[in-house]
Amino acid sequence: MHPLIQHIQKITGSHDIDDDAILLFFETKTFKKKDVLQEEGKRCSTYFFVIKGCLRLFFTDHHGAEQTLQFALENWWMTDLEAFRAERQSAYTIQTLEPAEVLCITTRNYMLILEKYPVMEKYFRLVYERAFAASLSRVRMISRMPKDEFYDIFQSKYPVFLQRIPQKVLASFLGFTPEYLSELRKKKAKRK
Amino acid sequence: MHPLIQHIQKITGSHDIDDDAILLFFETKTFKKKDVLQEEGKRCSTYFFVIKGCLRLFFTDHHGAEQTLQFALENWWMTDLEAFRAERQSAYTIQTLEPAEVLCITTRNYMLILEKYPVMEKYFRLVYERAFAASLSRVRMISRMPKDEFYDIFQSKYPVFLQRIPQKVLASFLGFTPEYLSELRKKKAKRK
Repeated sequence: MHPLIQHIQKITGSHDIDDDAILLFFETKTFKKKDVLQEEGKRCSTYFFVIKGCLRLFFTDHHGAEQTLQFALENWWMTDLEAFRAERQSAYTIQTLEPAEVLCITTRNYMLILEKYPVMEKYFRLVYERAFAASLSRVRMISRMPKDEFYDIFQSKYPVFLQRIPQKVLASFLGFTPEYLSELRKKKAKRK
Repeated sequence: MHPLIQHIQKITGSHDIDDDAILLFFETKTFKKKDVLQEEGKRCSTYFFVIKGCLRLFFTDHHGAEQTLQFALENWWMTDLEAFRAERQSAYTIQTLEPAEVLCITTRNYMLILEKYPVMEKYFRLVYERAFAASLSRVRMISRMPKDEFYDIFQSKYPVFLQRIPQKVLASFLGFTPEYLSELRKKKAKRK
């Protein structure tokens, strides 16, 4: 079964899904490592669902440094959602960290699929409900937690990230310098 | 027309809504200023929709300080969404900042109304889609922006907050000390 259909079944609990009809709204694309899927400042009209690989979303700050705000692994959705909804300029770049296979849906097809298939309304309601619920914990962690505590929680919640994501990118995501992250990892390794 | 029905119409564009049937799932409650609607550590099984007034969501940190993470004004939803979905212990306290009139729905009724009324699936999909889209900007602002720039954006996006929310609570939300906020306001006032 296609990974997206599996994911819809898992999230919604529905087994009565018209696979072929739903998949017609999407296009499958493959990318090499470090390929750019969406460029900052360009119109955003594509939403990505990761079948295989890892994406990151970042912007370039005043000092020219790339600031990573999100990752997407298998079964995760990624876009600049504010821009995508209105087909406006993206505030972010989306790039692969590994070779990737990705499903793509346009804003127009996203609207059509939601209109036509009630199971997709339920699916996206649940995807966003979870994501929005998690975002509150994230704000709490970023803004109110000592850095090493934030790292511990991140490590216990997303252990796979620590293996698949380059140190420099991970440091940027956590809001650390690469040096601080490296020191912290050494300290943690010693304690074990 | 009831404010919730108005809001559903506005968000979904649907005018074919069974008002009376939908409102049956909710209970209306009124609260005085500083009343507590949900207590940290207590089971969370209520979702609040603000008809009138202003709520805040906060937790108490290791030093005993109240850290405010969210506000809700008229037409906003508020709960500890992770806890509410599973009827688990709330990680947060929800309290009024003004006398308030609030619609309350239980986890059970929330599930039922979504099952029974497709317009509610669409409504909540859109509510969460917007909220999740906005949360990315919020993470960017909190974690990557100089404090005074964050304040400027917050002020231009939510001017009404600055009038309705006490200085101390607003400072906590922005991650400032009350002294820093007061200094910043003086500086901004001078520049005008």
